[in-house]
Amino acid sequence: MKISAMAAAQRGAALQPCEYDAGNLGPHDCLIEVAACGLCHSDIHMIDDDWRISSYPLVPGHEIIGRVEETGSSVKHVKRGERIGIGWQRSSCLQCDDCLRGDENLCDGNQGVISHGHGGFAERLVMDSRFLFPIPEGITTDVAGPLLCGGITVFAALRTAGMTSGQRVGVIGVGGLGHLAVQFAAKLGNWVTVFTTSDDKAEFAARLGAHEAVVVAGDEPPRSSRRLDILLNTAPANLDWAAYLKLLDSDGTLTFVALPSTAMQLPVELLLFKRRRVMASPIGGRALMRDMLRTADTFGVVPLIEKFPLGEINTAIRKVRENTVRYRAVLMP
Amino acid sequence: MKISAMAAAQRGAALQPCEYDAGNLGPHDCLIEVAACGLCHSDIHMIDDDWRISSYPLVPGHEIIGRVEETGSSVKHVKRGERIGIGWQRSSCLQCDDCLRGDENLCDGNQGVISHGHGGFAERLVMDSRFLFPIPEGITTDVAGPLLCGGITVFAALRTAGMTSGQRVGVIGVGGLGHLAVQFAAKLGNWVTVFTTSDDKAEFAARLGAHEAVVVAGDEPPRSSRRLDILLNTAPANLDWAAYLKLLDSDGTLTFVALPSTAMQLPVELLLFKRRRVMASPIGGRALMRDMLRTADTFGVVPLIEKFPLGEINTAIRKVRENTVRYRAVLMP
Repeated sequence: MKISAMAAAQRGAALQPCEYDAGNLGPHDCLIEVAACGLCHSDIHMIDDDWRISSYPLVPGHEIIGRVEETGSSVKHVKRGERIGIGWQRSSCLQCDDCLRGDENLCDGNQGVISHGHGGFAERLVMDSRFLFPIPEGITTDVAGPLLCGGITVFAALRTAGMTSGQRVGVIGVGGLGHLAVQFAAKLGNWVTVFTTSDDKAEFAARLGAHEAVVVAGDEPPRSSRRLDILLNTAPANLDWAAYLKLLDSDGTLTFVALPSTAMQLPVELLLFKRRRVMASPIGGRALMRDMLRTADTFGVVPLIEKFPLGEINTAIRKVRENTVRYRAVLMP
Repeated sequence: MKISAMAAAQRGAALQPCEYDAGNLGPHDCLIEVAACGLCHSDIHMIDDDWRISSYPLVPGHEIIGRVEETGSSVKHVKRGERIGIGWQRSSCLQCDDCLRGDENLCDGNQGVISHGHGGFAERLVMDSRFLFPIPEGITTDVAGPLLCGGITVFAALRTAGMTSGQRVGVIGVGGLGHLAVQFAAKLGNWVTVFTTSDDKAEFAARLGAHEAVVVAGDEPPRSSRRLDILLNTAPANLDWAAYLKLLDSDGTLTFVALPSTAMQLPVELLLFKRRRVMASPIGGRALMRDMLRTADTFGVVPLIEKFPLGEINTAIRKVRENTVRYRAVLMP
């Protein structure tokens, strides 16, 4: 089966139209017609081979919304015509301790949509049905994609850091990830403080539900009016982590979804005084993905997007590289 | 009321007999006759003013077992003649969120026995009865002291890192703290791997209940036959933390009770892959202290001690400085 897609022929290259052969559908596979696909920073890391796991031609795109066009012989939980979403993960072993606990994202054999196959900047793609997620009716196709990677990443990080409700949650960075984290935390009944370097983003975060927006200037240590239970870092930056740790209350957790480029300098005594914790969380398992979609639908968590026609993918990539997209680019075929 | 004690007159000084005036008993105070007192590394840090909080003359000693000799007018839960223990903590505010949750050890107003008063290398001392802990009958006076600081420190760290039973627990270091951690973890139904640099200690740890004892040589990365759920560091050393983190399974926690002298270099991606955590835990609150004593009594967790007469306190201090005590020095009046 021939599939038309947009691919980088080599490291760092602009995307060009290409065709590839997707073979025949396996018993658990579905053929998906793409209806929208978000552009994530990880796509650009993959285009640039920053993680040394890329192979070319590379078809990026892993925040995919589409319709099931054909189903393999063993596919049970999705039907032809159904609207589904696809995130970062293509498959996992489904048999290890992690998988059996619903932590397929932690499976040693987990595979990425674009690291182990071709992604969603395409007319179609073939995917293991067990990693397709029905999209609730209340979420529109254009905004749904960014929930599948950005949304699950911050939702899972907040939940695994212990977020319930009535807590004080800090979010560092108001971007593609941060603007979703603010909504999830606030709409689920938590006090939210954001930390940003931009007045505009501070104002925007307040409109999204943040109760406090702190503009951190230069070398000043960050401050917040309340001690925090959870502090989620969504900025891929090297910040003054010691200063942020001091904002945490007893048993508070600093959790990372965006990674600093250098090792964190962690003065362990800052953990000792209030029994604080540091952790990090990668995407999320299938049960949390469904929970996240249900939550976004029920409580109205909506990604703010800029739409581009798929033919303008290279423009979108440039704008994401320049960090000027507010807050998530979505490509429409 | 005059009290005879052993005190350091100045930073780093040998202890000398002294007398001080303990004033009158407050309504919540008890006068305690000391029956045994453990010597902890923290006493030596205080003698040396390593933490810049010491005042002199300094009477060290905060692993105290004694008998209640007199009670203040409001004292209810201990009686004259009762055998009680005293740990690091002298008092806390008893009204803040931490205190009301039973985390008096995290209280911003918490006070140490020897940082805010005179300690247990003495005939007697005056203590707030609310920080006295009745000692279960099955625990003998000579070995009980080290449970009150060393014991609670590792027990609370294991519990707050999530230790229940059936888990795989690693203990780095087999010393005053580590030899108690091995016992608590193993006797509460966990698989225990110890990491030590000494063949002797490896053998000893096995006798204490460790299922695996790994002798870590030079720059070799540590290995274990199983991935670990919890890894407790009891060694005040600068180790290859990245290598230890890699031993942790999904959602595993590295927790510190002994601190490295330099900031930990933490590659955050090592947390990300398996959603691992780093934390630290200081002593323990009153509810955990009672739980720890009950557990030690019920399951036979027994500190291995070397006894010294109080008059030989300076010999004991020298041996602790030289790290030759196996595994906890206890002074008997």
